[in-house]
Amino acid sequence: MSAIEINPPISIGIVLFPNVTQLDFTGPYEVFAKLPNTRLYLLAETLEPIKSDRGLTFLPDTSFAQSPPLDVLFVPGGPGIDAKLEDKNFLDFLKTQAQTARYITSVCTGSLLLGAAGLLQGYRATTHWLSLDLLRLFGVEVVPQRVVIDRDRITGGGVTSGIDFALVIAGELFGDAIAQSIQLGIEYNPQPPFNSGSPQTAPEAVINSVKAASQNRQDTRRKIIQKIVAQ
Amino acid sequence: MSAIEINPPISIGIVLFPNVTQLDFTGPYEVFAKLPNTRLYLLAETLEPIKSDRGLTFLPDTSFAQSPPLDVLFVPGGPGIDAKLEDKNFLDFLKTQAQTARYITSVCTGSLLLGAAGLLQGYRATTHWLSLDLLRLFGVEVVPQRVVIDRDRITGGGVTSGIDFALVIAGELFGDAIAQSIQLGIEYNPQPPFNSGSPQTAPEAVINSVKAASQNRQDTRRKIIQKIVAQ
Repeated sequence: MSAIEINPPISIGIVLFPNVTQLDFTGPYEVFAKLPNTRLYLLAETLEPIKSDRGLTFLPDTSFAQSPPLDVLFVPGGPGIDAKLEDKNFLDFLKTQAQTARYITSVCTGSLLLGAAGLLQGYRATTHWLSLDLLRLFGVEVVPQRVVIDRDRITGGGVTSGIDFALVIAGELFGDAIAQSIQLGIEYNPQPPFNSGSPQTAPEAVINSVKAASQNRQDTRRKIIQKIVAQ
Repeated sequence: MSAIEINPPISIGIVLFPNVTQLDFTGPYEVFAKLPNTRLYLLAETLEPIKSDRGLTFLPDTSFAQSPPLDVLFVPGGPGIDAKLEDKNFLDFLKTQAQTARYITSVCTGSLLLGAAGLLQGYRATTHWLSLDLLRLFGVEVVPQRVVIDRDRITGGGVTSGIDFALVIAGELFGDAIAQSIQLGIEYNPQPPFNSGSPQTAPEAVINSVKAASQNRQDTRRKIIQKIVAQ
């Protein structure tokens, strides 16, 4: 960076992996991509197309090896985290970037990857409601809120929380007026047709069906994390 | 379709084009992809990668020529609509599919494409708040609501309304319990950090800045639509 660059762009890196939940990062992407003087990186181990957990396929633009130092490190979640929880190269990339990043952030179960990289120990943080107890295993002070800020760590809850999370970051980086302009541009004036977006408000039968459908995945994930933290 | 298939999957087709606003369809995608007995198609004129207006690049999976008849025809919006408003092949695809679709739907300025295809004349419908007056030019009864249902037409407002829109469609197709389970799975319990998501609530300075930034695009779009409706 030469001295002539008074205001170099802010670099935001979105860390992708196979079987990521696409809305975990496409929500924040829409907000981040509208920030002024910002360069977004879609990072992955290679430039091969990345298939999300439900099939949507997109192209990363920068490999881990090519990544510049990031101002904002952002890790989304999804079923694909299980394979990355024990992936040394992947976790090393997070650790290296975290040494210089201004903000170390995640949405949904991306916080479990930050946890596995040792980046949330002793911090207040959140994750998807189904994985709150798993995040605690990494020595995290788990807070069941939509967006949690603790020093330079900013974490969001499940999937759609990424939009709230990204607007919080937009406000932190560029002030309220920029964040509000982006909110208006994407007409983020949510009106869910049901009141079922949280285990605090959803009908019990709905909660039970979602828990039952995820039971095997959560059991597998718990075993992986218990093995990691026992090491 | 053979007589042995008692319950053939519901087919939902997402119609893509260059410079689409990715969150217009990635929000609905996350909901639709979790529906039971449903086949999702990411449709485009060719299978070439599609670059969104802010750079995120996706792979469509089915060309228009290969598309089966769709139960749900869904058109997202974005700056790329301007090039499609006068694209006969593109509009012919919408018209052909609309003849047999159970639901003809859009989010954001996708409704202008439905309008250009003559599919919203005499219907109540909505679009992104900046384009409400343009939608009216197509003979639409414009309703500034988040999601508007009129017979088999279901339209959503700007960008993030797609999540509300898709949950409404999930409820229509499969009942409330399925839609509620999906809402809980994606933790759609929105908590915007600002109250700036609608021109009814945003500060005036924020509204003015968003209007100013979009003025050239909206002027160009108005001229295109005025030419179309004069023909």
